[in-house]
Amino acid sequence: MRYAFPFSAIVGQHRMKQAMILTAVDPGIGGVLVFGDRGTGKSTAVRALAALLPPIQAVEGSATNAESPEDVAEWDRMAGTEMVDKPTPVIDLPLGATEDRVVGALDIERAITHGEKAFEPGLLARANRGYLYIDEVNLLEDHIVDLLLDVAQSGENVIEREGLSVRHDARFVFVGSGNPEEGELRPQLLDRFGLSVEVRSPSDIEERIEVIRRRAAFESNPEAFVSKWAGDDAAIRDDILRARKALGDVETGTPALRDCAELCLALGSDGLRGELTLLRTARALAALEDDGEVTRKHLRDVAPMALSHRLRRDPLDEAGSTARVERLLHDVLA
Amino acid sequence: MRYAFPFSAIVGQHRMKQAMILTAVDPGIGGVLVFGDRGTGKSTAVRALAALLPPIQAVEGSATNAESPEDVAEWDRMAGTEMVDKPTPVIDLPLGATEDRVVGALDIERAITHGEKAFEPGLLARANRGYLYIDEVNLLEDHIVDLLLDVAQSGENVIEREGLSVRHDARFVFVGSGNPEEGELRPQLLDRFGLSVEVRSPSDIEERIEVIRRRAAFESNPEAFVSKWAGDDAAIRDDILRARKALGDVETGTPALRDCAELCLALGSDGLRGELTLLRTARALAALEDDGEVTRKHLRDVAPMALSHRLRRDPLDEAGSTARVERLLHDVLA
Amino acid sequence: MRYAFPFSAIVGQHRMKQAMILTAVDPGIGGVLVFGDRGTGKSTAVRALAALLPPIQAVEGSATNAESPEDVAEWDRMAGTEMVDKPTPVIDLPLGATEDRVVGALDIERAITHGEKAFEPGLLARANRGYLYIDEVNLLEDHIVDLLLDVAQSGENVIEREGLSVRHDARFVFVGSGNPEEGELRPQLLDRFGLSVEVRSPSDIEERIEVIRRRAAFESNPEAFVSKWAGDDAAIRDDILRARKALGDVETGTPALRDCAELCLALGSDGLRGELTLLRTARALAALEDDGEVTRKHLRDVAPMALSHRLRRDPLDEAGSTARVERLLHDVLA
Amino acid sequence: MRYAFPFSAIVGQHRMKQAMILTAVDPGIGGVLVFGDRGTGKSTAVRALAALLPPIQAVEGSATNAESPEDVAEWDRMAGTEMVDKPTPVIDLPLGATEDRVVGALDIERAITHGEKAFEPGLLARANRGYLYIDEVNLLEDHIVDLLLDVAQSGENVIEREGLSVRHDARFVFVGSGNPEEGELRPQLLDRFGLSVEVRSPSDIEERIEVIRRRAAFESNPEAFVSKWAGDDAAIRDDILRARKALGDVETGTPALRDCAELCLALGSDGLRGELTLLRTARALAALEDDGEVTRKHLRDVAPMALSHRLRRDPLDEAGSTARVERLLHDVLA
Amino acid sequence: MRYAFPFSAIVGQHRMKQAMILTAVDPGIGGVLVFGDRGTGKSTAVRALAALLPPIQAVEGSATNAESPEDVAEWDRMAGTEMVDKPTPVIDLPLGATEDRVVGALDIERAITHGEKAFEPGLLARANRGYLYIDEVNLLEDHIVDLLLDVAQSGENVIEREGLSVRHDARFVFVGSGNPEEGELRPQLLDRFGLSVEVRSPSDIEERIEVIRRRAAFESNPEAFVSKWAGDDAAIRDDILRARKALGDVETGTPALRDCAELCLALGSDGLRGELTLLRTARALAALEDDGEVTRKHLRDVAPMALSHRLRRDPLDEAGSTARVERLLHDVLA
Amino acid sequence: MRYAFPFSAIVGQHRMKQAMILTAVDPGIGGVLVFGDRGTGKSTAVRALAALLPPIQAVEGSATNAESPEDVAEWDRMAGTEMVDKPTPVIDLPLGATEDRVVGALDIERAITHGEKAFEPGLLARANRGYLYIDEVNLLEDHIVDLLLDVAQSGENVIEREGLSVRHDARFVFVGSGNPEEGELRPQLLDRFGLSVEVRSPSDIEERIEVIRRRAAFESNPEAFVSKWAGDDAAIRDDILRARKALGDVETGTPALRDCAELCLALGSDGLRGELTLLRTARALAALEDDGEVTRKHLRDVAPMALSHRLRRDPLDEAGSTARVERLLHDVLA
Repeated sequence: MRYAFPFSAIVGQHRMKQAMILTAVDPGIGGVLVFGDRGTGKSTAVRALAALLPPIQAVEGSATNAESPEDVAEWDRMAGTEMVDKPTPVIDLPLGATEDRVVGALDIERAITHGEKAFEPGLLARANRGYLYIDEVNLLEDHIVDLLLDVAQSGENVIEREGLSVRHDARFVFVGSGNPEEGELRPQLLDRFGLSVEVRSPSDIEERIEVIRRRAAFESNPEAFVSKWAGDDAAIRDDILRARKALGDVETGTPALRDCAELCLALGSDGLRGELTLLRTARALAALEDDGEVTRKHLRDVAPMALSHRLRRDPLDEAGSTARVERLLHDVLA
Repeated sequence: MRYAFPFSAIVGQHRMKQAMILTAVDPGIGGVLVFGDRGTGKSTAVRALAALLPPIQAVEGSATNAESPEDVAEWDRMAGTEMVDKPTPVIDLPLGATEDRVVGALDIERAITHGEKAFEPGLLARANRGYLYIDEVNLLEDHIVDLLLDVAQSGENVIEREGLSVRHDARFVFVGSGNPEEGELRPQLLDRFGLSVEVRSPSDIEERIEVIRRRAAFESNPEAFVSKWAGDDAAIRDDILRARKALGDVETGTPALRDCAELCLALGSDGLRGELTLLRTARALAALEDDGEVTRKHLRDVAPMALSHRLRRDPLDEAGSTARVERLLHDVLA
Repeated sequence: MRYAFPFSAIVGQHRMKQAMILTAVDPGIGGVLVFGDRGTGKSTAVRALAALLPPIQAVEGSATNAESPEDVAEWDRMAGTEMVDKPTPVIDLPLGATEDRVVGALDIERAITHGEKAFEPGLLARANRGYLYIDEVNLLEDHIVDLLLDVAQSGENVIEREGLSVRHDARFVFVGSGNPEEGELRPQLLDRFGLSVEVRSPSDIEERIEVIRRRAAFESNPEAFVSKWAGDDAAIRDDILRARKALGDVETGTPALRDCAELCLALGSDGLRGELTLLRTARALAALEDDGEVTRKHLRDVAPMALSHRLRRDPLDEAGSTARVERLLHDVLA
Repeated sequence: MRYAFPFSAIVGQHRMKQAMILTAVDPGIGGVLVFGDRGTGKSTAVRALAALLPPIQAVEGSATNAESPEDVAEWDRMAGTEMVDKPTPVIDLPLGATEDRVVGALDIERAITHGEKAFEPGLLARANRGYLYIDEVNLLEDHIVDLLLDVAQSGENVIEREGLSVRHDARFVFVGSGNPEEGELRPQLLDRFGLSVEVRSPSDIEERIEVIRRRAAFESNPEAFVSKWAGDDAAIRDDILRARKALGDVETGTPALRDCAELCLALGSDGLRGELTLLRTARALAALEDDGEVTRKHLRDVAPMALSHRLRRDPLDEAGSTARVERLLHDVLA
Repeated sequence: MRYAFPFSAIVGQHRMKQAMILTAVDPGIGGVLVFGDRGTGKSTAVRALAALLPPIQAVEGSATNAESPEDVAEWDRMAGTEMVDKPTPVIDLPLGATEDRVVGALDIERAITHGEKAFEPGLLARANRGYLYIDEVNLLEDHIVDLLLDVAQSGENVIEREGLSVRHDARFVFVGSGNPEEGELRPQLLDRFGLSVEVRSPSDIEERIEVIRRRAAFESNPEAFVSKWAGDDAAIRDDILRARKALGDVETGTPALRDCAELCLALGSDGLRGELTLLRTARALAALEDDGEVTRKHLRDVAPMALSHRLRRDPLDEAGSTARVERLLHDVLA
Repeated sequence: MRYAFPFSAIVGQHRMKQAMILTAVDPGIGGVLVFGDRGTGKSTAVRALAALLPPIQAVEGSATNAESPEDVAEWDRMAGTEMVDKPTPVIDLPLGATEDRVVGALDIERAITHGEKAFEPGLLARANRGYLYIDEVNLLEDHIVDLLLDVAQSGENVIEREGLSVRHDARFVFVGSGNPEEGELRPQLLDRFGLSVEVRSPSDIEERIEVIRRRAAFESNPEAFVSKWAGDDAAIRDDILRARKALGDVETGTPALRDCAELCLALGSDGLRGELTLLRTARALAALEDDGEVTRKHLRDVAPMALSHRLRRDPLDEAGSTARVERLLHDVLA
């Protein structure tokens, strides 16, 4: 049996962990883009998330984790009629996965043996109601990233290929990691990610030692290590479940709307995805922190991750984009 | 059930909404190209349009929405004999749709199981009598855009491939969105779109707040939100139906023809598509506004959307193309 | 039923119409290349030509419009034994037509169901004894244009592919339209077109108004419009038929030959296709104008369309090629 | 029935005609490369050659024109047992011929219906004992030209593909035409052609008129024209047959060998193909002119066509390569 | 029977041999990258390693060398139920191996004959529990190297292609050789190799003579040569086995952790893979040298191979990366 | 019947002939690379070699020329049980040979008719125990040359493709010809050829005449010409057979080893392939010259062909690489 490194045992990396928890509270926030140096544990964190997330209730055997027997599609032949508990799916797109396995394709076996055109679902079906993780998303071709973002945003996978015309639910949070040194994503694509966070290798010697120590402990006895951190992981899971319930009741008054709009106008961000995401993320944070209303505190906390990838480059301003967001926060929400 | 954001609840964006309504009155005006910043709700508007448009009467089960049983093609095997009401089709070309699914192709299943060469219609058949929407049309290869414009203009899809020789009606309005910052379309292609409009993020703070407020309201309770705006949508639909009937009776006197010709000559636009489209759009507007004749008022109103994408670039004139059209309107139609 | 815009109702564009009529009198003149601005009615003219041309007598059902039952090829399985009247074929090569549909290919259906290697004719077979039209010929790859010109010139389509070895008549006039602003054809290809004409948007305001007026009349009631111009179209058709009969008796004396040779030498045109085409076109014009002999009048009239695409570029001469031909006409045929 | 323009009716172009006649006397001389302006009748000349050449004796139905029943290959299934007279094959490689049709390939039909791996010969088999003509050889990819030259030189077509391992005779003269303005052949390829000639449009007005007159006469009544020139063609054919018999007895003394070697050394041509070809061509000329021995007269006459394409470019010498060969002829064979 | 050159008979190349032995002690260290001049015996060393390594116990016939009958996958049809001794697998990826043979693919034979979708394992399955060697890894495409490193690191091969969805153990040490003069690997890829060593041709004349002498001796009588060195090879094998057992008991105190972290901080290496690998390699060395605790001596010995490929390029520092690591060792671990 | 030009009748080209003879004595020396001008008889020499080489004893019908019935592979279905004499195979890789025919591939015929995955050997199998010749090796893609050199060096062809996993003996001498003017081989590839020689057109007039004379004699009566040189060819064949027997007894004392090492160190050649090849070639020469020990005389004679393609380019030394080797020979082996 394989053990995943516990989410709560990750040293530092507060922003990355927070972004993942917030999208677990409200998947409608959209995907998360994790920028950063190599070897900073990006993929470890996503795999850790899989173990942390609360289970979902789904139709037994359903390829899309259908929420009720009525939702089962005609082509979903292995689906039963009973509901079961399943771990939240975290699908890790392996390098070299072919496009037909991602979006689904004609089931060649049935085509040959039964002479019928059946649909064979792909990874996007399996990711429904969960997470889809892609390492080094900047190495993928633009049209694939575009397609994944499109599906992630609409919540639906529409297949029009090889004579098939199928659509199915594909609501998932798209987590991509990237190294800014190796080719950048187009602004058009950046804007379609909900949040972005940057991870760095710790520069504090004690923190580095702690990372090595925990890693070595995990490697020499994974079972004991996981068990030691199980309580901390459970606490996070409970927070998420509580926040999900509270989410609908969090209020967003006009002052919060105005703050969002003014921040984005000041930043000169194109379009309105900035303020919509900022508001939604702040609401998830309020729910997580048990607050009944979105306040400037919440906006300030999440604005950098909701907005910094939406800035236009300013050749006269040498500050990084996160620094620019924070300066504005100070000015606008003074 | 999925709800579409109501067309009438879109804040601002008057030009885009007007262009869509005018092509609903007279689809012969041609396609609409929507330029603009990312995140300005271009695809939301098209999806909204689907819910707004009046139903069509079509042969039951017909792949091309045939207008009468006599019009049903031999290959259209699922077509029945009775007439039914159908929503106006709005086909959204998904990213990654293969060419065979767009134009139609050999039905491989029948080829294998029955040994016969049957035609399987594509998205162009389904779009007949409706709308075809493509997001980021500037990212498509030229030859595909060319093919789509060709079909849109001739109203017929001619298939000569894989041993098939088929033609079927494909009358639809082609709506494409594009971001001028990411590669431009060739002038040759631009000219073949009927209308073009530009959308911008609102710069007015109250308008931005209203956008967020409506979006948030829609997201928290889509059913209630849609129901609240149903009346406004119905009013637009009624206007369109009334204008369609009136269209044939709108008069276009020689002064209007002369105005069109003089405007286009003054603009130096190549070819004659400019004046033909301008006249046709003005007539649709007159019908919509219950006027019996095309006047300068109508021409002035629609000239920017009918002409601004047909201007040659003028390196000595820094004004945008819409501004140039408006300056000329003032001079010529003074 | 679809109506074509009548050939005689096209406003202006004298050269383009003349070139098409001359190739209808003598298809041996070769293809026509129509240069010009977008939206100047190039494809309208070709579609109009289809309705104008006199019918041909062909074997019923023959894929190549065979001239007599003895000419029917073994593979032409649908051909009957009786002669019928057919409209002159005008084949419009659709964008995206695959090469197998153009030149013909193995009939996959028969290969699968009967286990035999049968030939399935393509568009080149259907164009035999008629016209083949390609819009934006400059966007095609050189080797396809080359192949089409090769077939057009030899009058035979030789297929050596997929184990097939077939040849059939493919005598047609190849009409291509192109926009000189979008990439040029190689001189080698230009030379293989018989004639070239340039079309421009009219710069006369009354002419533009007339174009719009006729177009609007056609669109609002195509049947009435076509019927109104039927007489004019018939007159042109009769002229063509009369000229075809007269063609064999038109004399070409040594002075005419000498004029052709001197003109081409003075122009410095490579090869001898220039004078051969010039002479042939002048003879067709003489036949059309009921003259018994080719005179300088005929040569002067057709020299620009027969020669201007065969000039070498002269960097020191800023005049366009048509102007250069006309200046020479004045000098040589003074 | 189609008529070919008679070889002897070609006006001028002495070198091209001579080169073709010499390779008809001794095919071992190798291929002929015809450079020149467009429209100078290069392909007309090759098609004319087909009608001129003497017939060959071959096994009835043999795909490779086998010289005797014993030479028939196992795979040559249509070959009979009797000898028949056949026209000398002149194979015209059509544009777009696929590689499998050129070299031969697996017979798919037999593979499917009989489950056996049979060889289906290609154009190289049909060209055996004749001519293979390729228009615009410089537009072919290098590896194909290389392959064709390889087969032409070895006289054998070796097929190692798709599980087939076949070899058959493919002795033919490879005639290629090219336009030096459109990309050049690599020196490596040039050297493998036996002879090269250059054709130009005639600059003499009377000659141009004569070309047009003959062409016009041929076009208006091909049968009469061909019959008028039949005697002249027959005389050339008889010369070729007589020269073939005499060829074995033509002597090549040491002085002729020494002249060849000195000429090539002086020219600085790489390798020894130059002198070998020069000698062989001079011998064919001697045979044609009924001379019993190769003399300087013969060498002088054919040296330009045998050597001019083998010169290294000399940036300090502006004379064309033919002029350089002729200057050297004067110096070396003074 | 083929003989491999004995590992212990390799002259010099201490670092390369040490790196291979250390990964044999603890495969978790990760892959080894061997840089160096051509002809320095890189592939000889890997092939020698195969003969040296201790055997593994595996299920008879298992395609993945399963460790117990319970671990045998459903698709592993040839696996028996008994345990057998097998040589440690050393898989040499041949040039031209297709991707399906590397990762595994659909078993076409079973698909055709049994109509079922069976998995046919590839080289990654066969490499499980052993070594995978690739010569000139820098000539492979990045995405393949990435895929191999991904599998090597996770220890699992995930196949999502051709309708298959399979995962199996693929724990192996990835050894790649490369020539730094022929294109470099991306830093992102470099970082994922555990160790790197550089090999050079010996510059000492006696050493070169010894190399030739041994090679000549091996070639003239391989059996005798191998037998002569068998004892030395066995001694190394015993050391490895002993060290594997001791590995779990080697202690890594906080001072060692701190040394690792300080070294990597001083080097400015991105991420934390540097210190994790350094520590792990030092522990393997301690086990091999029978020491109970990791000390600075071990860190100093292995730091160059664990860290030098993780340095950022420093344009102001002309020293090679190994020299820079050694200078730092002196400063930090003074 | 085809005759090959006799090896001994080749005028001059001593080095090329010597290199081929030495690899016939000891194929372990490795491949030969023949550089040179076009038309210098490189391919003639290789074809001549085929006729010269002594026969081999092989299992009747074996696709790999197996040395005894026990060596016959399971897939080698046509192999009998008796030993026969066969000419030494000289396989000439034809241009356009597909990769499957080179390395071998799935036997499609058996796959279809018997439903089994059988291996169909390629040219590498047929070349076993002989020669593989490739003309213009520098025009091949690097990865193919790499693959061929890999197989040539290891003596084994490993096939991992299309679900096949086969390995068979493929011991052959790889002879490649190349023109240094047309793109160079990578140093990495150069180093893997055993020997290299350069051929030039003779600059001596008498030698050139002799070449033409012999060629002309061969062409006019090949049978007589071959018979005339048969004795000289037989003498060379006998020398080779005698030298093969003597090879095992030639001694290589430490002074010879030291000379090799010093020469290569002085040349600065990378790796050790230089001295290993030099020693091996010198031993073959000693055997051929009936000497019992390798002396400086042998080293001096073969050093240029063993080393000159292994030199690094020296931008300050304008002498060719052969000249540089010879200068060093003088200094080091003074």
